[in-house]
Amino acid sequence: MSTTRPDPAGLGARAEAMIKALAPISAEPGRLIRLFLSGEHRRAADVTAGWMREAGMTVSEDALGTVRGRWGAGPGRRQLLIGSHLDSVIDAGNYDGPLGVIVGILAVDHFAKAGVTLPFGIDVLAFGDEEGSRFPSTLSSSAACVGEFEMSSLPFADREGVTLADALARYGKSVADIPAAAYRRDEAAAYVEVHIEQGPVLEDANEPLGVVTGIVGQTRMRVTVTGMAGHAGTVPMTMRRDALAGAAELVLAAERIAQAHAAEGMVATVGRIEASPGATNIIPGRVSFTVDLRAMEDAARRQAVEELQAEGFRLVEARGLQIEFEPFHDVAAVKCAPALQDTLAAAISDLGGEPIRIPSGAGHDAQMMARLCPSAMMFVRCRGGISHNPAEYASPSDMGLSAAALIRFIERFRP
Amino acid sequence: MSTTRPDPAGLGARAEAMIKALAPISAEPGRLIRLFLSGEHRRAADVTAGWMREAGMTVSEDALGTVRGRWGAGPGRRQLLIGSHLDSVIDAGNYDGPLGVIVGILAVDHFAKAGVTLPFGIDVLAFGDEEGSRFPSTLSSSAACVGEFEMSSLPFADREGVTLADALARYGKSVADIPAAAYRRDEAAAYVEVHIEQGPVLEDANEPLGVVTGIVGQTRMRVTVTGMAGHAGTVPMTMRRDALAGAAELVLAAERIAQAHAAEGMVATVGRIEASPGATNIIPGRVSFTVDLRAMEDAARRQAVEELQAEGFRLVEARGLQIEFEPFHDVAAVKCAPALQDTLAAAISDLGGEPIRIPSGAGHDAQMMARLCPSAMMFVRCRGGISHNPAEYASPSDMGLSAAALIRFIERFRP
Repeated sequence: MSTTRPDPAGLGARAEAMIKALAPISAEPGRLIRLFLSGEHRRAADVTAGWMREAGMTVSEDALGTVRGRWGAGPGRRQLLIGSHLDSVIDAGNYDGPLGVIVGILAVDHFAKAGVTLPFGIDVLAFGDEEGSRFPSTLSSSAACVGEFEMSSLPFADREGVTLADALARYGKSVADIPAAAYRRDEAAAYVEVHIEQGPVLEDANEPLGVVTGIVGQTRMRVTVTGMAGHAGTVPMTMRRDALAGAAELVLAAERIAQAHAAEGMVATVGRIEASPGATNIIPGRVSFTVDLRAMEDAARRQAVEELQAEGFRLVEARGLQIEFEPFHDVAAVKCAPALQDTLAAAISDLGGEPIRIPSGAGHDAQMMARLCPSAMMFVRCRGGISHNPAEYASPSDMGLSAAALIRFIERFRP
Repeated sequence: MSTTRPDPAGLGARAEAMIKALAPISAEPGRLIRLFLSGEHRRAADVTAGWMREAGMTVSEDALGTVRGRWGAGPGRRQLLIGSHLDSVIDAGNYDGPLGVIVGILAVDHFAKAGVTLPFGIDVLAFGDEEGSRFPSTLSSSAACVGEFEMSSLPFADREGVTLADALARYGKSVADIPAAAYRRDEAAAYVEVHIEQGPVLEDANEPLGVVTGIVGQTRMRVTVTGMAGHAGTVPMTMRRDALAGAAELVLAAERIAQAHAAEGMVATVGRIEASPGATNIIPGRVSFTVDLRAMEDAARRQAVEELQAEGFRLVEARGLQIEFEPFHDVAAVKCAPALQDTLAAAISDLGGEPIRIPSGAGHDAQMMARLCPSAMMFVRCRGGISHNPAEYASPSDMGLSAAALIRFIERFRP
């Protein structure tokens, strides 16, 4: 293992400057909006490509607009892929996405400047469609790299009625080139992504970096509880079929079930609720709410859904209500490659950190890239766990540590 | 006691015909809307006055538009007041209000035709403002009869910006005459009101008529639970401060507390609930909901409010939430006069019924009239307990029984 001496403070200062350079590239002044295939995407991609070239990389761009900086490639050498995304949600923070691209560039720059030769090449990938905030699709740019781009998403339109196909053409891309964006299986050694945590676990543990165990699977469903509306004054308690009282039991059941499966990293959230008819003096006859249930273990998640449904059927008996469960979203969990997790943990330990292992409750390009090659993620502490919000913040010091840990990971990595 | 032989079937047929005559008097075809001091109020009042005259009554109208049919008055004789209201909610049923006026007229007609002389006179009162569906005031017409009309309500405006003062003037009334609408204390012997139950208790008990014990007191409050919004995937269950989970506990606590006080006729309803920010994948940071709590015993109601608040403060400890309770409506319970209740019960028994005693969970003119003189109410079974709805229905048979019971009550009544 060739080892160098990365300088976390210096790397952090550079990361901070690069974050600040990308921050103003937005569709609106004073509010970050950087949508897939927009003019802002173009400008951010150009800035990124410039940094890649300065770091000594050869830059290309694929049919989905993914910027690819290549370094150290050669005959018989496989590529370690390092990536994240440039697109943002609406009214976003500055760190979600760009940080992973930036530390990838800083790592390559570090090795290039140190004159180190690695036994593999590195591709830094700057994806453009991770948030899914423009079209009703997501991860389409990493899907193209995996060779699993869905051609059926081309007619999907944005809020202005522009289709994905049109937007690609306006971005100067040809649909015919999409297949060529795919990596060959023998070309990609692994994929690693550095990303802010977007949650409070690292901050709570007082650790700057964490090893991601995987990306949780997810079930979303709409639950409708139907009882009987009635006058709030004239219907005795014993004669009520109160849909909201039943729904309240299910809200608490969802919480209880997730707590019981906490060891599997399960979380359950009821984020929306609506009671009808919705007057102060009328007993709710109908309540609908959403349940968002996530876990690292798909079997545990399915069991939790069944437990919640069983609780619903109990209410049918006990309260004379009707219950309907309509799942509308179901995504399997993706586990990070154990060997890569261990290498990331060793890299974090090299820097004196305690490599906490945590599941990712949010989706990332890594979950798509895992279909191509062994994939892993490193999380970086963010203040208050806040993300998708202008208040999102990672300190220069933590960003520098993440770049240094990525450098140590690369030094330890063997394809 | 002079006794006659009222004919429930015949009375029921006449009540049904009179209900059908008033039903189409609405601001909209096919949907019943009869607001205080509207053209519809005028037409319904004129029809009612016509029926009163046919029954042998002397008709007058007070400064609030209350139609007063007087019969059997004389020097040294007190008046038994029988009343209810002609106004309606929006998209109303046909029975809520008019039934009480109609059976009062039928009772007087019965005695007049039978040539009976009673030891007191009868006033049938057709009030115009019980529902409060036009102005942000209610019971203003019975308040005028009691001598407690609130002059401060005169500037209140309806949805079109017409004030109560303007509406009275357009109805041909003078504010200067309002004090004269008040009964003298020595003039009113008692007040009795027949009304559909608007609840399911009589139907459930298979009884057409019930004796009302009183009108429940009421507390309404807005409860706001504040926690911390967060990403549905990235915040572990142990680190959440989920405002909706806390609110769900309070919804169930309100139900549990009311059930524990069921003997005092307590009911509690959470009719409105709102979770913010209200997205499937965001933990609610703030939930507000309403609580409507009613009971015959004011002390029990106040105790229940305290129990609910104590439960809220427990959540502050257990869940790290903040709770705010904002009461916005507080009305004391009004008990029906025990002697009148017993007379009503005897009248119902005379007809072979079982005189069930039930509290009224809704407000009625009787609660205002109780400030003037001993007051009581008789409830009439309505189908499915449905009211404030076009599906509201009382059968001709039950209406006839209520008229016959009112006649028996009058025969038994001694001022």
